Amino acid sequence: MRINVKECAQMLAQQDDILILTHAHPDGDTLGCGFALCRALMKMGKICAVINADEIPEKYDYLYEDIAPIKFRQSYVVAVDVATVNLLGSLEGQYHIDMCIDHHSTNTEYADYLLLDDVPAACQIVFEVIKALGVDIDSKIASCLYTGLTTDTGCFRYASTTAQTYRAAAELIELGADNGRINRVMFETKTKTYARLERLALDSMRFYENERVAIITITQEMYQLTGSNEQETEAIAPLTRQIEGVEIGITIREKSDGTCKASIRTFESVNAAMLAKEFGGGGHSQAAACRFECGVKEAREKLVAKCGEFLV
Amino acid sequence: MRINVKECAQMLAQQDDILILTHAHPDGDTLGCGFALCRALMKMGKICAVINADEIPEKYDYLYEDIAPIKFRQSYVVAVDVATVNLLGSLEGQYHIDMCIDHHSTNTEYADYLLLDDVPAACQIVFEVIKALGVDIDSKIASCLYTGLTTDTGCFRYASTTAQTYRAAAELIELGADNGRINRVMFETKTKTYARLERLALDSMRFYENERVAIITITQEMYQLTGSNEQETEAIAPLTRQIEGVEIGITIREKSDGTCKASIRTFESVNAAMLAKEFGGGGHSQAAACRFECGVKEAREKLVAKCGEFLV
Repeated sequence: MRINVKECAQMLAQQDDILILTHAHPDGDTLGCGFALCRALMKMGKICAVINADEIPEKYDYLYEDIAPIKFRQSYVVAVDVATVNLLGSLEGQYHIDMCIDHHSTNTEYADYLLLDDVPAACQIVFEVIKALGVDIDSKIASCLYTGLTTDTGCFRYASTTAQTYRAAAELIELGADNGRINRVMFETKTKTYARLERLALDSMRFYENERVAIITITQEMYQLTGSNEQETEAIAPLTRQIEGVEIGITIREKSDGTCKASIRTFESVNAAMLAKEFGGGGHSQAAACRFECGVKEAREKLVAKCGEFLV
Repeated sequence: MRINVKECAQMLAQQDDILILTHAHPDGDTLGCGFALCRALMKMGKICAVINADEIPEKYDYLYEDIAPIKFRQSYVVAVDVATVNLLGSLEGQYHIDMCIDHHSTNTEYADYLLLDDVPAACQIVFEVIKALGVDIDSKIASCLYTGLTTDTGCFRYASTTAQTYRAAAELIELGADNGRINRVMFETKTKTYARLERLALDSMRFYENERVAIITITQEMYQLTGSNEQETEAIAPLTRQIEGVEIGITIREKSDGTCKASIRTFESVNAAMLAKEFGGGGHSQAAACRFECGVKEAREKLVAKCGEFLV
C-alpha cells in the first residue's frame, strides 16, 4: 500500500526495535538513507540498526563509525533504496518487510507499505521523513543525507538532478553536512589498484567507425598485474563515452571462466538497450549490458560489426 | 569605490553603449558573467557587447551563438571576474574601466566602482545584479549564470561551495538553465588529443617516499605524439593527488626551450607554496608552482630530494 511522507513518519514514530535493510553491494544513497534514518530514530529513543548483505566499502566509514553495534530482536523492518527483494542479496527472504522507502519507479511493491517518489536520490525522501518525524537534524544526519544526494547524482552533475535536489543540498550544508570532505572522498580519490587498472584500461582503448565507437578491453591478466578486481571496473565504463565525438562507448570485461561481459554507454543518438538486445542483453537507453560466451577479442569483433548499424 | 548590488544595478540602468571585458584565457565564470549581463542589458534596450583578449574555447559557443556582433563606441566599461588589470591580457590599458564586478578578495580596486563579494563564483553576484535590474531572466541568461557557478566550483564539488551557491543553482534550473547539457560539456567531454595526452601522462606517473609522492612528467615529445599542447595540461595536475595515499602530487611540464615548470598539488598535511618556494616559486597552500632551468629528469630528482622534508 502506498503511503506519503507524513503517514510514513507517523508509522515509524509508533514502532520500536526497527531493523533497516539496505541493498546488497551498498552505495552512498542506500547507506546514507539507512544511517540517517537510524540516527534519527535513535534520537527519538528507539532501538535501531542497519544491516546489509555485503561488506561496506571503507570510504563510507564516517556514516556510522560512532554507532555502537547492538543486538535486538526486530519488531519492524524497513528497506531503503531497495527496488526489488533480490537486491537484498543474501538477506532476501530472511525478513518480512513492513515498509520500504524508495525512489525507483520500478519498485515491485514488495513491502506492506511503500513510500515512493521518483526523485534523483532516495536520501531526498528520507530527508523529508526525518523532518516530518520532528527530529533535530544534526551534522552527522546531514552528512549521511548529503552523501546520498551527491553520490546518486554524480555530484549534482547528471541531467536528472532537479532544483529540489540542489535545495535539499543547500539545507543539508546549513545543517552541517561536510560537503567538501564527502565530495573529495567520493569523487577525487582513486585506490592505487584502481589507478593502475584505469591506466591499462585506457591503454587498451581502440576506436572504430571514424572514432565514433570506443572500446576498452579489460582482461583477467590486467587484474593480476594491477592487484585490482572486477568490483573496481564500475568507474571504467563511463570513460569511453567521455571522448569527444564518441557516440558508443563499450567496456568488455573478461570473466575468470574466459567468457565476457560488455557494458555499453551511449548518448541520445544511439539506444544502448537495443544494441545490447542484439546480443541477448538489455538495460536503459543510454546504459546497457550483454554477455558473450566467447573471449574478449571475438566479442569485440561482434560488437564492432553491429555498431555501424546503430550510428546514424 | 565600493558599491553594493543595488547601487551597481542603479548605475548600470543609467548607462548605455556598455562594453563588458572578461579576463584573458576566458573560463566559464568570466564568460558566464559577461554574456548573462550583456543579455540582461540588451533586454533593457541597451547597446552592449562582450570582448576579451583571447579566443573563446568552442565549448562555450552556446553562451553567445545567438548574439549578433555589433560595432559601437563604448561610453561605459565593465570588467567581470577580473581581479587585476594585467589579467585583461592584451586589452590591458586600452580602456578606462568604470566598473568591476568580482569575487576575488585579491581584487586591486582598479575600477572606479567595485562590486566585490567573496563567493565561489562571480556569476553568483551577477545573478543578484540582474535580479536588481528587474530583468526577466530567460533560459539563456540562466544557462550563462549556471555555467559560471558549475565551472568555478568543479560542479559543486569544492569545499568552498556554499549553501547559497546550491540555492542559486536551484533557482537557475527553475529559470531554465540546461544543467544536464552544460555539465556534460564541461565535465564529461575530453578532446581526443587531451585523452591521448592524459594516457601518456598517467603512464609517466612515478611514485616516491612510500608512494606518498606521485610525479607525472610531460615532455615536448608527448605533445607531438598526441597532437596536444600545453594548454591542455591544466586538467592533468589534479590527477596526481587523486591517488589514495598520495600527499604530494607533482606535474612537471617540459617547455619548448628544454627548461620546465612544476605544478604542485597537496592536501592540508603539506604546504605546496613552501615546497615551491624552495625552488623560487610560490602559490597557495594546496596548489603552487615553480620553474627549473634544467630538464625534466633533473627537476624531478631535485623535487624528490626535497619532498621527504615536507612529509610528516
